[in-house]
Amino acid sequence: MNENIKIGSYPFIVEDFHADYTGKLSFSVLGNHLLNCSNLHARQFGFGMGHYNQESYTWVISRLVIQLEEPLYKNEPFTLHTWVSKVYHYFINREYTLINSDNRLVGKAHAVWALIHEADRTPVNLNRFFDRIITDSVCDETHALSTSKERFKLKETIPCFEHKVVYGDLDINGHVNSIKYIECILNSFSLDVYNHGGLYKLEIAYVEETSYGDRLLLYKEDMGCNSFYVEIRKDTDEIVCRCKLFFK
Amino acid sequence: MNENIKIGSYPFIVEDFHADYTGKLSFSVLGNHLLNCSNLHARQFGFGMGHYNQESYTWVISRLVIQLEEPLYKNEPFTLHTWVSKVYHYFINREYTLINSDNRLVGKAHAVWALIHEADRTPVNLNRFFDRIITDSVCDETHALSTSKERFKLKETIPCFEHKVVYGDLDINGHVNSIKYIECILNSFSLDVYNHGGLYKLEIAYVEETSYGDRLLLYKEDMGCNSFYVEIRKDTDEIVCRCKLFFK
Repeated sequence: MNENIKIGSYPFIVEDFHADYTGKLSFSVLGNHLLNCSNLHARQFGFGMGHYNQESYTWVISRLVIQLEEPLYKNEPFTLHTWVSKVYHYFINREYTLINSDNRLVGKAHAVWALIHEADRTPVNLNRFFDRIITDSVCDETHALSTSKERFKLKETIPCFEHKVVYGDLDINGHVNSIKYIECILNSFSLDVYNHGGLYKLEIAYVEETSYGDRLLLYKEDMGCNSFYVEIRKDTDEIVCRCKLFFK
Repeated sequence: MNENIKIGSYPFIVEDFHADYTGKLSFSVLGNHLLNCSNLHARQFGFGMGHYNQESYTWVISRLVIQLEEPLYKNEPFTLHTWVSKVYHYFINREYTLINSDNRLVGKAHAVWALIHEADRTPVNLNRFFDRIITDSVCDETHALSTSKERFKLKETIPCFEHKVVYGDLDINGHVNSIKYIECILNSFSLDVYNHGGLYKLEIAYVEETSYGDRLLLYKEDMGCNSFYVEIRKDTDEIVCRCKLFFK
């Protein structure tokens, strides 16, 4: 298969109501676009979420890294490209590039996804399940998107923000939509950080799913140089997700 | 001008992450689509928000009614049509229809919009400001979308839900995005109402703008027959918006 046709291209525009108060495309809207493109691309290549052999399967995201070299502004058209760069037994790596209207690479993203049975939430062995469909779609092209490997050890014991899971947070599986955690984390910051250039990089690892009525507690550590570590925990202290944010 | 060309048509699909946990397009995502289409249509006809004579102007929504005859489900394509049906001095009426992939009318909406100076938030006399541009775009086609005219008198004194305005609620004007109030209202209901058929009609009147850090208090009255009146007030007791919701 020609490498180029393995890459899905999806045109967007930064709609007025998708820009934040500074006029820039917000990371949560961008995150939603990334998720939607991943689905469209997977469906196009025959490994989308849905029904197989009368059972229902869904893709869940395990890690997401987004890095913008420059922000995208209100009314700016841009294109999202995505492809699968690697297939493990239970995971795939997916890469993304953001190309602005001048055809310049303005951002990159990387995600790790797993396919799970909707009923019991167990992961599927992808090679066995899809035979060669996914491996044939793999495009070798990767991009250097550095992520900090070291695990940050949370010392903070007092949550800086809390959120009770409501109707609008839930996706079709009845769990909190992955992007809602990002929204929640972004909302835990005061406007100061957004007034001074804003966010340019975010790394998030999803650990545990949450459901309606769960109380989410956010703990924040200053990592220095305008970067922060945020951990979301349930009130039972189970870790929900870990996130690092880098502001300009 | 031919009446048909006065109507803007915008294709959509109910994306996986735009569906609520019941698999239906949520009213808040639909509301955002309505706002975006309104902007696109206004821009297309030369009366979009933006700069005129070195001053910045923005359209603000004053009333919105949405009624769905049948829900739109995940992955369903649909088309939104919008046109201006009337111009007053300071307001326009805008109509919307939702057409599903079988070409059936599945929903209607109606909105009242005003154009304001961004600097001092005062409304603009539309006929004088745009000369004939808006009136020429008026399409006589209206649709019967009944709204309850009677004003509901709130008796409830204890808020059922509260929300502090955060980063993600703000639009480019630094005020809370109109659709965020709808999200907040929908989130104030337990899943019971969504489990039993969900929302099919919403009427909202916007009274006062709110800003970062404002504490929004929601008061709810049961109007009977699965319908509710919700009022959002600031903690200073000023009314922010009034909303009626009709569930199946």
